[in-house]
Amino acid sequence: MRCKSLQLDLGAQSYSIHIGQNLIAEPSLFESCVKGRQVLVVTNDIVAPLYLQKVLNSLDRLEHPADSIKTLILPDGESHKTFTTLQQILDELVQCNFDRQSLLIALGGGVVGDMTGFAAAIYQRGVSFVQVPTTLLSQVDASVGGKTAINHPMGKNLIGAFHQPKAVIIDTDTLGTLPPREYAAGIAEVIKYGCIMDHAFLTWLEQNINAINQQDPATNEHLIYQSCLNKAKLVSADEKEAGIRSHLNFGHTFGHAIENALGYGTWLHGEAVAMGMLLATKLSQLLGLVTEADLKRLEKLVSDFNLPTKLPDHLDNKTLIDIMQRDKKVQQHKIGFIILKSLGQAIMVDEVNEPLLEQTLNYYR
Amino acid sequence: MRCKSLQLDLGAQSYSIHIGQNLIAEPSLFESCVKGRQVLVVTNDIVAPLYLQKVLNSLDRLEHPADSIKTLILPDGESHKTFTTLQQILDELVQCNFDRQSLLIALGGGVVGDMTGFAAAIYQRGVSFVQVPTTLLSQVDASVGGKTAINHPMGKNLIGAFHQPKAVIIDTDTLGTLPPREYAAGIAEVIKYGCIMDHAFLTWLEQNINAINQQDPATNEHLIYQSCLNKAKLVSADEKEAGIRSHLNFGHTFGHAIENALGYGTWLHGEAVAMGMLLATKLSQLLGLVTEADLKRLEKLVSDFNLPTKLPDHLDNKTLIDIMQRDKKVQQHKIGFIILKSLGQAIMVDEVNEPLLEQTLNYYR
Repeated sequence: MRCKSLQLDLGAQSYSIHIGQNLIAEPSLFESCVKGRQVLVVTNDIVAPLYLQKVLNSLDRLEHPADSIKTLILPDGESHKTFTTLQQILDELVQCNFDRQSLLIALGGGVVGDMTGFAAAIYQRGVSFVQVPTTLLSQVDASVGGKTAINHPMGKNLIGAFHQPKAVIIDTDTLGTLPPREYAAGIAEVIKYGCIMDHAFLTWLEQNINAINQQDPATNEHLIYQSCLNKAKLVSADEKEAGIRSHLNFGHTFGHAIENALGYGTWLHGEAVAMGMLLATKLSQLLGLVTEADLKRLEKLVSDFNLPTKLPDHLDNKTLIDIMQRDKKVQQHKIGFIILKSLGQAIMVDEVNEPLLEQTLNYYR
Repeated sequence: MRCKSLQLDLGAQSYSIHIGQNLIAEPSLFESCVKGRQVLVVTNDIVAPLYLQKVLNSLDRLEHPADSIKTLILPDGESHKTFTTLQQILDELVQCNFDRQSLLIALGGGVVGDMTGFAAAIYQRGVSFVQVPTTLLSQVDASVGGKTAINHPMGKNLIGAFHQPKAVIIDTDTLGTLPPREYAAGIAEVIKYGCIMDHAFLTWLEQNINAINQQDPATNEHLIYQSCLNKAKLVSADEKEAGIRSHLNFGHTFGHAIENALGYGTWLHGEAVAMGMLLATKLSQLLGLVTEADLKRLEKLVSDFNLPTKLPDHLDNKTLIDIMQRDKKVQQHKIGFIILKSLGQAIMVDEVNEPLLEQTLNYYR
């Protein structure tokens, strides 16, 4: 087994993130987490036919096998990240008499991971779970850091908990079945780490565009490892997002507004974040922080990964600004805008006036 | 203001428990928790007409008043401790644009406290809350220790979280409107602290039966203070119930079985716990730990507070034993029975064989 591992340091909640090819076929990675527990594997109807059996085979081959193994296959998609689906997971746990020592395994993208993690957080006041993310976006972002949630009809991720997994098992082979557009959307969050905290990584991305776009395994592995390493640094410094962890929201205030205005699912989250990062960088330039050359450099990188570099024509400034203000009020009070002090270093600004926001938005029309 | 305070030590999650007469009319106790936040007071339709206005008056008189104050009045009763009611609280928070700095105030008994605390635990991944318990049971038990939950149709408190309040404000005057039977039921948990960890307190209870039954204010205050102090010791030693905190389950394995077999609400929780404590003490005696005299002493105490000392006639042993086994499997795996090493000291036993359980149950027929 070729596998790169890194540790997320959170005291008693610390855990390992394993990255490599064909890892879901490695019983040893599941061994210590399962060890005689009742196990529920939660996945969705797209991922199940591709990878569920492989995971079950690994669980069958443990030295200390599970007491019992159940599976639950949810419908795919963000529209199912609801109270109703959450209850489905909890009902399954109750009906199967799962106890406090149980283990949930989330096999899928961010939606499966967020919901399974949240169910684990609140079943009997908290049971263990393992993340097995199968999309690039969840491998480099959602599955690391312990944020779990469901959506409320009035807003994304409004109901949730911080609940750290026991382990994150990232099998880079699962990316082989990911649609190219979703792969590119995942790259947006990868670029983000370069922008906010890792200039050398940004340079590496620029130098490896072809290998990345061709999904070369060793390149993929480094790309994911370096992303998780960066995220782990911020999370271990600030588990509950009281401060520096909010830098991870770079590009997200603009991005959420775009997603929301277009209707969720029109643009993928990562596409909206890519556009949002360009806007936040333009804003940084207007504030005299980054140079025009820096902005052009980031634009080229975003464009090389086939991510959007223009706002949709029919979205007017007022709509976007209104959503950002409401978003900030409801969901991100006091978080403000994350902008760049330089390429590779983020800072937060509390208030940005409306004319400046308009000027920023107009630049990408 | 006459007020006894004690501190629950849980590092960054530490908080104070204030006990005294007319405390809900003391703005100073709410001051630091509220301080410019959005506040939602959650209560029920029995408690609201009695005490809601008093709390609102206190909130109106703060030096740093709340940004906004909303109230939510839930239907009274354990049957409403459901997902549906939980969603009602969350909907209210979302619809009022409550942010991450919000504060929930739970004004009522254990049901209001458990649900409000749970809503606070999962709204935007955790906001603050304050417990203002108005029943003896919640004052001496539920409001201290951070266990929050709702019921699942198949079991009590199956869905929940550990989430510590910012403060617990216990106004002993609220006991004046509590039905005598509910007051007595609260005493059961008070006796429990004596049995499991505080022999001197047990003696004090025996010496103050009349004053307690007459609800003398100073006596009430000491009774609640000493109970909270004992609970605080166990909780700060073992916040997430990995070990010694489970001693608080003394009397509860038998008690839950009685409640469940009779149908919840037939006997009050405290009544079932009182009977459960006698059964667990009888079991301790059969195992050669406590003496017959100890058992008789506890029986007298339970009886002096008008709590049950006989099992309901129509409940057969098999029904109770089956429920205990299922309960143990689903909810309390590895917790086993809490019994007494002596009056004032609890221990845990993993397994108790069925004939011994039958012998124990038969003694109280």
